[in-house]
Amino acid sequence: MTRWLDDDEQRTWRAFGLAARLLTDRLERDLLAAADMPPTYYELLVLLSETPERTMRMSELAHWTNSKPSRISHAVNKLELKGWVRREHCADDRRGWHATLTDDGLTALRAAAPRHVDSVREHLIDLLTPQQLRQLGDISQILLDHLIGSRPPEPPH
Amino acid sequence: MTRWLDDDEQRTWRAFGLAARLLTDRLERDLLAAADMPPTYYELLVLLSETPERTMRMSELAHWTNSKPSRISHAVNKLELKGWVRREHCADDRRGWHATLTDDGLTALRAAAPRHVDSVREHLIDLLTPQQLRQLGDISQILLDHLIGSRPPEPPH
Repeated sequence: MTRWLDDDEQRTWRAFGLAARLLTDRLERDLLAAADMPPTYYELLVLLSETPERTMRMSELAHWTNSKPSRISHAVNKLELKGWVRREHCADDRRGWHATLTDDGLTALRAAAPRHVDSVREHLIDLLTPQQLRQLGDISQILLDHLIGSRPPEPPH
Repeated sequence: MTRWLDDDEQRTWRAFGLAARLLTDRLERDLLAAADMPPTYYELLVLLSETPERTMRMSELAHWTNSKPSRISHAVNKLELKGWVRREHCADDRRGWHATLTDDGLTALRAAAPRHVDSVREHLIDLLTPQQLRQLGDISQILLDHLIGSRPPEPPH
């Protein structure tokens, strides 16, 4: 027996679903305009920049971004074409690959970061009170615990 | 001068961004598995089903879903191939097109709806307390007011 959504639940779900989609679209548009970089690439460059020797295995990149390996592989191909990432066989495992952030990649990331942060502030953070930010953090964490069954990945240091 | 995110803001933004992406992916996977229908199609079928004579102009579909006309045009093409929607010239404007939900489309929507609602409950609604749902609704509305400068569209009746 289906438990249909009542009016409040329906309203909340529609507002949340639409807000999430429009925010995603908006941040993507801003980052493309400011730095010719979709958010997926930005996220990968950040991860690599925070890692020792700016290097990670492809499988680790997939893990920490909760992405399918095929999605990472596609993105790293594009990043390599831009000269922002270099891909090499792992020294200790000839079947594995790792990706390394290049100096050009680090420069591109440093140029993009202030614009992206401005955009996240403008369309999300600065719209909400400190209390609402805490509420949104708690709610997001509940969804994440359910969807990935663990804390959201923190980049390794 | 860039106002970088502090640790709490950073955590909230990362958790929210990831939760929104994983929830979107999960609902899409569930709906594809249950009804061979991506959420975009589902949303269009719902809109048409709630409209007099199950018919809307293409431009209205774009407006009410906050989508680009090209996105709607692409989706309606696919829905037409499935036999769920019929596209015809508007009687009063030969340059305009409208889309009509077919009987097969209504049947497909009615078959998909319970599974989709189960999925929205399982991965969102039933995870949160009534208070958290109100908070999420309020927060989403603030984002929407900013992102589209108005209330989220309610389907016309």
